[in-house]
Amino acid sequence: MSKRIGADTIELTSRPRIAAWSASAGQKEREGPLGDTIDYVLEDDLLGQKTWELAEAAMLRDTAFRCLDKTALKTRDVDILLGGDLINQIMAVNLCARELMIPLLGLYGACSTMCEALAVGGMLADGGAARRVLCAVSSHFSTAERQYRTPLEQGGQRPASAQWTVTGAGATLLCGSDYTPEGVIPAASLTHATIGRVIDYGVKDMANMGAVMAPAAADTLARHLSDTGRSADYYDEIITGDLGKVGRGLMLALLDEKGVKVDAARVWDCGERIFSPEQDAHSGGSGCGCSAVVLNGYILDRFARGELNRVALMATGALLNATSVLQGETIPGVAHLVVIEKEDAR
Amino acid sequence: MSKRIGADTIELTSRPRIAAWSASAGQKEREGPLGDTIDYVLEDDLLGQKTWELAEAAMLRDTAFRCLDKTALKTRDVDILLGGDLINQIMAVNLCARELMIPLLGLYGACSTMCEALAVGGMLADGGAARRVLCAVSSHFSTAERQYRTPLEQGGQRPASAQWTVTGAGATLLCGSDYTPEGVIPAASLTHATIGRVIDYGVKDMANMGAVMAPAAADTLARHLSDTGRSADYYDEIITGDLGKVGRGLMLALLDEKGVKVDAARVWDCGERIFSPEQDAHSGGSGCGCSAVVLNGYILDRFARGELNRVALMATGALLNATSVLQGETIPGVAHLVVIEKEDAR
Repeated sequence: MSKRIGADTIELTSRPRIAAWSASAGQKEREGPLGDTIDYVLEDDLLGQKTWELAEAAMLRDTAFRCLDKTALKTRDVDILLGGDLINQIMAVNLCARELMIPLLGLYGACSTMCEALAVGGMLADGGAARRVLCAVSSHFSTAERQYRTPLEQGGQRPASAQWTVTGAGATLLCGSDYTPEGVIPAASLTHATIGRVIDYGVKDMANMGAVMAPAAADTLARHLSDTGRSADYYDEIITGDLGKVGRGLMLALLDEKGVKVDAARVWDCGERIFSPEQDAHSGGSGCGCSAVVLNGYILDRFARGELNRVALMATGALLNATSVLQGETIPGVAHLVVIEKEDAR
Repeated sequence: MSKRIGADTIELTSRPRIAAWSASAGQKEREGPLGDTIDYVLEDDLLGQKTWELAEAAMLRDTAFRCLDKTALKTRDVDILLGGDLINQIMAVNLCARELMIPLLGLYGACSTMCEALAVGGMLADGGAARRVLCAVSSHFSTAERQYRTPLEQGGQRPASAQWTVTGAGATLLCGSDYTPEGVIPAASLTHATIGRVIDYGVKDMANMGAVMAPAAADTLARHLSDTGRSADYYDEIITGDLGKVGRGLMLALLDEKGVKVDAARVWDCGERIFSPEQDAHSGGSGCGCSAVVLNGYILDRFARGELNRVALMATGALLNATSVLQGETIPGVAHLVVIEKEDAR
């Protein structure tokens, strides 16, 4: 049963377990600093499919199966699939779900979707609505770039604030307290969620998603700390989804303005970490797949090895579409936060 | 606290209350058989905005406010906003949420989104994660038509199986058992949810959404009845979202094939009912707004007047996008079911 604390934070009192996780990504991600933590690397980002969109759906499906394969569970043992992606009408997860045949709740939170799925999944498992949920999200450079920006063939110049959409998928299996499969050792538990508000600071530059998302990230983190009465130091690390270098700096400045004390050395961004500066990704990686790949590899592996005790993970999303940008609309952002804690750390 | 029954159905044991509801729609919907049940009719479907997309977002925002205005509640009294629409990247609900400033969980279930929102909202209220949730969805003929099909100016011939996207929005306020505002009499309670699986029977015709969605609707209803051990007669009415005339017939045939006995006279479709045959909507209405407008007017008004005791409402969605159709992909469908019951009917 969940409990609300403060204005906007939900405590998951039964502490749903993160029982399995898996990530897939492309060659560029493999060549980045976290490349070794990726479960499965795509040899070719078309994955044998005839379109990029079908490739993304296949990548997501394979990642979901690989996650389940780490346990003795089959798809019929999972009550609900929670997922989303960046393709119009979340095409990747819809096509993936017709093969998995797990009842689907489709989500859209742009690049914040990994945390949106974990938050909803955690609440459903905690409230008894689901015994096990599979959270699965993806993005693909070639589907996103041509949909949101310009044809791939155009090869336009990218400003320094631009980010590079990660080709990758991540899947996380959450189990209600009595439903972890036998013999499976969970990496950690999900203990809290703070749902994001949609914040718009008037940014119109679609090549500066960090500036779009930073105000939402600062808002969510400030509300979370106020609701829980915790200082930022409670967390070993505060990890954002894909603010990139530009957005991380802006978020820290906004937190400072709000009077929220944060040790900048403990705050890092999946988008900034997934590619090295030499990889020409400018401000960093982005896309639903960015935080999904880093969570379902680097972060959860470190929990499993006992290197992390408490983390606040906050995936961030820029809520634009191709039409809104052409219509001159400002771009709002959103950030959903979940707390991951090692059981022993209680 | 929620309880799972059968393979896939969730019983909401605390029976979250439907405390307020409101619907807005356009002139064509006003002229239909249910026109009198619509709270607010748009004089002009641009609503004073410069684009159809901004008009849809404004309609959704106004509908949400009108729903809350029926109680003494303000936006800050609502814990979570659950919503979606058909515009790419659910632009309407995102723009609406930046004005409401209620923490947002963005959903995408195509035209099934009203029931997806009610199902998730019911589970969150039942599990203690939210005291009050506002479920808000919309569609707009002019945003949907040009995005999914052809430019509005083209005015192409529509086959008899085609449906007409409803310009409309609906908002429903769900309250946890102890959180109905004083003096407010709920219309009914939400008692069960059955989440849809994504089903694909290989239909490629985007002018026949009824055929796309009927298999998913039959699947969800069959699973729901099997899980609950109920016969279809338990319900006063079984209401589908936007199967239209073509889809309703197909669903009944598929249920018959599955051996599920249903009295066809008690099964009706919001899309078939919202427009009259003279209105040139062919197979019927469609869009998230279709079931949303009919629920948040005609159906809940009848509950409030004591004319209904038990209803299974099943909104249906066709999971296509413009790209998938051009790529020759088959179109999967989904259907989410919620049970609405009068308190006295317990």
